[in-house]
Amino acid sequence: MKDVMIKSIEWNGDHLRIIDQTRIPGKLTYLDLFTAEDIYDSIRRLSVRGAPAIGVAAAYGLYLGMKGKSSKDRNDFLKKTTSVADYLSGARPTAINLNWALSSIINRIRELQLDPDELLVEVLNLAREIHQDDIDRCEHIGRFGATLIKSGDTILTHCNTGALATAGIGTALGAVYTAFQQGRPIDVMVDETRPLLQGARLTMWELDQAGIPATLITDSMAAYAMQKGKVDLVLVGADRIAANGDVANKIGTYQLAIAAHYHSIPFYVTAPLSSFDLSLSDGDQIPIEERAGEEVGIIWDQLKITTPNAKYWNPAFDVTPSEMVHGFITEQGIIYPPYKGSFENLQLNNKIYLKQEELNL
Amino acid sequence: MKDVMIKSIEWNGDHLRIIDQTRIPGKLTYLDLFTAEDIYDSIRRLSVRGAPAIGVAAAYGLYLGMKGKSSKDRNDFLKKTTSVADYLSGARPTAINLNWALSSIINRIRELQLDPDELLVEVLNLAREIHQDDIDRCEHIGRFGATLIKSGDTILTHCNTGALATAGIGTALGAVYTAFQQGRPIDVMVDETRPLLQGARLTMWELDQAGIPATLITDSMAAYAMQKGKVDLVLVGADRIAANGDVANKIGTYQLAIAAHYHSIPFYVTAPLSSFDLSLSDGDQIPIEERAGEEVGIIWDQLKITTPNAKYWNPAFDVTPSEMVHGFITEQGIIYPPYKGSFENLQLNNKIYLKQEELNL
Repeated sequence: MKDVMIKSIEWNGDHLRIIDQTRIPGKLTYLDLFTAEDIYDSIRRLSVRGAPAIGVAAAYGLYLGMKGKSSKDRNDFLKKTTSVADYLSGARPTAINLNWALSSIINRIRELQLDPDELLVEVLNLAREIHQDDIDRCEHIGRFGATLIKSGDTILTHCNTGALATAGIGTALGAVYTAFQQGRPIDVMVDETRPLLQGARLTMWELDQAGIPATLITDSMAAYAMQKGKVDLVLVGADRIAANGDVANKIGTYQLAIAAHYHSIPFYVTAPLSSFDLSLSDGDQIPIEERAGEEVGIIWDQLKITTPNAKYWNPAFDVTPSEMVHGFITEQGIIYPPYKGSFENLQLNNKIYLKQEELNL
Repeated sequence: MKDVMIKSIEWNGDHLRIIDQTRIPGKLTYLDLFTAEDIYDSIRRLSVRGAPAIGVAAAYGLYLGMKGKSSKDRNDFLKKTTSVADYLSGARPTAINLNWALSSIINRIRELQLDPDELLVEVLNLAREIHQDDIDRCEHIGRFGATLIKSGDTILTHCNTGALATAGIGTALGAVYTAFQQGRPIDVMVDETRPLLQGARLTMWELDQAGIPATLITDSMAAYAMQKGKVDLVLVGADRIAANGDVANKIGTYQLAIAAHYHSIPFYVTAPLSSFDLSLSDGDQIPIEERAGEEVGIIWDQLKITTPNAKYWNPAFDVTPSEMVHGFITEQGIIYPPYKGSFENLQLNNKIYLKQEELNL
């Protein structure tokens, strides 16, 4: 296998350099982000996307937002940091990783009795820790996920869950990379993932870079592929997992889960523990981002496909009920049903689950 | 309601004028077709599409293919007609209406003891009869279908089954038009229908012309719309229906049917009897057209969305098993399960079901 280590996020001493994912696969261009506003905008318009990746970007965004600010004392610093975090966490509502990364830093620095200057250094250190942490989590997820992939399997996947979506090798695609690297011949079937085409644009590009065989289909073909015996396993990512195992993920995941369920094909969700939100008892409570209808009507900002008067509905995510999930592949192993109550046994980092309200000091 | 009678197919004395459906909604342009080759090409590249519409176009194609040819006697004429029919029926394999229309004419003229010149006149008369016949069938389907639509309903539909897909008001959309015309406030949710976007391009355009409220979604959003209670009824068309009630229709229909089944939402198939193929016992025997992968990778011939090396799979249709179909809305009424054996009771025109092999005199 060729080197799959696409670096979607890189800390460059005083700024964050990211791959502009809106341009892939046409052009591999980078964006240099110097301020919290730069980070916010790049998350908002999906230049950086993928639940784990936006968590890492937001962590650096917190540092960049505080860097230029002067604070008279520790309390003032904490107050300002919280306000920057509140701003950043508003960039996208569904993926909990964004809020998790910010909470994680804020919760930690609140415990420290340091001067503003020292606290600022600490914010950067914590951002770098979250960054490295995500790389490590991906590796573990990849290794656990690969145990489910047999030689000759075709894995169907949705959206992008690879190196572009994380700081490491990815989650669902991380498992694919790992199985391939371990020498098993496999094939990947890739849902194009309308409206924003993350499957066609990003996943196909990543798999091509890695030399892994892949076939692109439209989202509407997945069930037919299953009926024809072309799919052995479905692997997807997650933007937020509720305490009962309901999963918010890219729109289309639910439809795919129903189809897999109907054909008795294993359907697994891959996610770091930072995607679990035990403060929500079920998926109904997960906020679902609705984006501009033009993302449906004008493909990739370029091709108008419908009448000028068209009305749209454009939910960016949907919720798959826990009973359709065969297992959760995490960095601490694979969790099987029943899920209710079982997530509490994981070695969750307590600080992670600071609630949004707590940010409002 | 505004006038919905878009004329997708018009006989102009010596040639067929069709709306070029590949250009809708950007431009309303017409193509003038003078030869069988013109007809074949326009069917092949979907300038005219929709199972009933291609049946009508092929009927005229048979006349246009024979018009210039001189035949020494009746037998010679019949032989040449069959050869033109064989050619035309190869344009697209899945919709049976194409073969039905051709069989219908050939079977009839074989019974006539006339000279070549008189037979040629007869071919045109029969083509015009098939044309008018389709207009009438649509009206009946529309009226039966409308009985299922209640005031305030939202109807989810896939692909295009309206005036563009037929010579009349359409099948599934015909039912929608009729219900709306009868004064019931309704809403339509339209699957964009990748890869060729017939929903976004054609159905949204038709509904806009007719002033019927419609919302465009990506194909992947349908199940989520159902989960959220936004869909009361699913209406789709058909390209071929086997004797047991299995239905070939536009790719994505099967996935939609599974989702409707899972949410217990009524799923009805609308089709003229010319779409029934009782020579096939089940859907496994229906030939499924696989089209060029570029239709997936380059949207609407214009926008490249993936890596240059990408592999594709592009089946144009899928097969929905009969047990997911709540009923078939035909011009002779709504047929409910069990389907096996029940289609034989319909007033099918016997001449219709001439087998393909019989064309090879």
